[in-house]
Amino acid sequence: MADAEHPCDLGGDPSLGQEIVRRIDALSAISETPDHLTRIFLTPEHRAAADLLLSWMQEAGMVSHLDAIGNVCGRYEGDRPGLPCLMLGSHYDTVRDAGKWDGPLGLITAISCVGAMHKRGQRWPFAIEVIGFADEEGVRFASTLLGSRAIAGTFDESVLGVRDSAGTSMRDALSRFGLDPDHIGAAARARSELLAYLELHIEQGPVLESQGLPVGVVTAISGATRLAASLTGMAGHAGTVPMLLRRDALAGAAECIVAIEAFCRTDEGGLVGTVGYIHAMPGATNVIPGQVSFTIDIRSASDAHRKLAVADVVRQIETIARRRKLLLQVDVTHDNRTVPCAPWLRRQVADAIAGEGYRVFELPSGAGHDGMAMIDVADVAMVFVRCRGGISHHPDEHTDMSDVDAGARVLLRLIENFRPREAADSA
Amino acid sequence: MADAEHPCDLGGDPSLGQEIVRRIDALSAISETPDHLTRIFLTPEHRAAADLLLSWMQEAGMVSHLDAIGNVCGRYEGDRPGLPCLMLGSHYDTVRDAGKWDGPLGLITAISCVGAMHKRGQRWPFAIEVIGFADEEGVRFASTLLGSRAIAGTFDESVLGVRDSAGTSMRDALSRFGLDPDHIGAAARARSELLAYLELHIEQGPVLESQGLPVGVVTAISGATRLAASLTGMAGHAGTVPMLLRRDALAGAAECIVAIEAFCRTDEGGLVGTVGYIHAMPGATNVIPGQVSFTIDIRSASDAHRKLAVADVVRQIETIARRRKLLLQVDVTHDNRTVPCAPWLRRQVADAIAGEGYRVFELPSGAGHDGMAMIDVADVAMVFVRCRGGISHHPDEHTDMSDVDAGARVLLRLIENFRPREAADSA
Repeated sequence: MADAEHPCDLGGDPSLGQEIVRRIDALSAISETPDHLTRIFLTPEHRAAADLLLSWMQEAGMVSHLDAIGNVCGRYEGDRPGLPCLMLGSHYDTVRDAGKWDGPLGLITAISCVGAMHKRGQRWPFAIEVIGFADEEGVRFASTLLGSRAIAGTFDESVLGVRDSAGTSMRDALSRFGLDPDHIGAAARARSELLAYLELHIEQGPVLESQGLPVGVVTAISGATRLAASLTGMAGHAGTVPMLLRRDALAGAAECIVAIEAFCRTDEGGLVGTVGYIHAMPGATNVIPGQVSFTIDIRSASDAHRKLAVADVVRQIETIARRRKLLLQVDVTHDNRTVPCAPWLRRQVADAIAGEGYRVFELPSGAGHDGMAMIDVADVAMVFVRCRGGISHHPDEHTDMSDVDAGARVLLRLIENFRPREAADSA
Repeated sequence: MADAEHPCDLGGDPSLGQEIVRRIDALSAISETPDHLTRIFLTPEHRAAADLLLSWMQEAGMVSHLDAIGNVCGRYEGDRPGLPCLMLGSHYDTVRDAGKWDGPLGLITAISCVGAMHKRGQRWPFAIEVIGFADEEGVRFASTLLGSRAIAGTFDESVLGVRDSAGTSMRDALSRFGLDPDHIGAAARARSELLAYLELHIEQGPVLESQGLPVGVVTAISGATRLAASLTGMAGHAGTVPMLLRRDALAGAAECIVAIEAFCRTDEGGLVGTVGYIHAMPGATNVIPGQVSFTIDIRSASDAHRKLAVADVVRQIETIARRRKLLLQVDVTHDNRTVPCAPWLRRQVADAIAGEGYRVFELPSGAGHDGMAMIDVADVAMVFVRCRGGISHHPDEHTDMSDVDAGARVLLRLIENFRPREAADSA
């Protein structure tokens, strides 16, 4: 067993895993409501969490500050001041009724790893920065990756006018939080300042668990296309319209859903396709549905593969609609490119995992992460940590202490052995 | 063309079809709201409609009264007073935002046919009674066939305590309407008083239209079984759970819907099966549905056939659930026996249709009708009249004047040639 062979041996600090879990628990206590973890961008809880994170960064030997979008930023200098940095990070906002690991695990592991190095007085030929991104989930303003976009210099200032459900604009919320909305540009970093961006995160899926592994190398953050489809047939009395005279929109949608699932199941490129929402109208037991709306979410680690798949799926549902004399409307509501993890960084992640004695296993990230924005300013890599049952965005989200340890050891080893791209490429 | 060969020749009253349509228009003006026809049991509109129907009955030479449940009752004596009656009827309540033909066509055609006979001074060796049933749709108290159950002596007095959405009990609503709720038993009729119950109604389906026929002989009012099904799998992130590790409740439900449709389409016994309602939870674009509820409505003109079909459908969805590792729950929420139309009466309906020059076409009624209650006190038959596009329970419900004429001629001929069961059987 990997865990038995590699007990928590962290350079004289066997309590690092415990410290990470303790800090995750402490951070999770900062919530809108005590029973359901909810920590939304620019709320008082968000501010309290930022303050706690800033204090841990200082404790870990970092100089820390809040930037203009609310990112918590800590810097641990290298051999000499002002060196380009290896940037580590994850986010500290949550969805509503969240789990406590999504975001905080990566952020706190990074802080605690730096703290362990600080205790040992270790410095490297590069700086380390740790960023707690202010808004990855996009719950409040329906616009995700606000923190990492500000860092990457791709923040769209037009979203400052967007209002939350209570009518507060992002601009006003930033001001009330104590930040200057006209200063967000100052959060942007230059490519020359960053050697790489590296994020540790729970997998949010069941693959590592099914492989029996605590950690994995992320190959890419999969691109996603979302479609809104509607089928219109003819409503009718469930008793009086013979089967062969029906234009049942729900039977048509059901055939589409089965076809989408079959198409993705038989794909050998790791495609995933999901119909998560469906609404049949009028929706009465004794009425044949005349209209059905449903969504389609298609993801792949290859943009080309995803685009072909979307075209194939649309062609299939067009064929189904035509044969059933249903009117089909399909609109693309969301389209995100794939963000590949840099091969030179993936090799270093793999080496660190192998160095800790684990089998190296690669998998794409089907969920979105701050790396999707960070790619615009740095090469990106990710380490995934197993989470129980693949459950995420739910209070049952859980990572075992031994997996937290494994993640921390891998991250420590990664930092200790990190070589910037030029050095890595010439090796 | 049948219509051209059989112009509206009704014994010197070429305006009978026009009269029926005029009365349907007049009755449809009595509505809760002027723009959407809604006439609910025991409301002021319901009372105003009853008064108008009573006046038309008197005009048609009938003695009329309101019975204890609010049925409008008219009696046209035969050759001598007190003879058993041929009972004609339909209902005068409506669904919300209704069409004007569902119910009133049969009721008003019956009144106008009696009126035509009255004008000609015709009497028969049997009485004719026309009943306008007070509540067939069951909109107010979620309990259908209240009027016909009172006549059949099967009214369940426990429903008097049921309250409408405003909190008014049926008992109080009857009292406010001017009726004595303790007197409903007095509305019940003895089997010896009734020779038969005969109802003309719009088809509410597209079959006669697809056959190019204005009228048809109903074989039976199909029995119906309704099931509430739920499938429970495992919710998950649409991006992070590979296809082969999913337990997608909506994909499972979709497979069930496709199977139910295929099963009913290939049935040669006229089975119809409908999934009219579906709800997927949590219902977000990017979340694999963990639970789905849906309804199944299965009807057939044969109870034995329907029961076998229900068992087959349940077996099929059980198999689908087992294969997909989904938890299935299925409950029967409604189960109505088939009400066969009496063969001796069907023959007379067929003879009247043929006598008017139309091809005799038989079809089951997939919708419920007052005959479902009347079967407990009399043999039952029905005549269907074509309605445009099969549309019903909708403001677009429509029957052409020429089809109204055809229905009236068939009903007149039926009455003129009516022979009670004994006479018919010995013929």
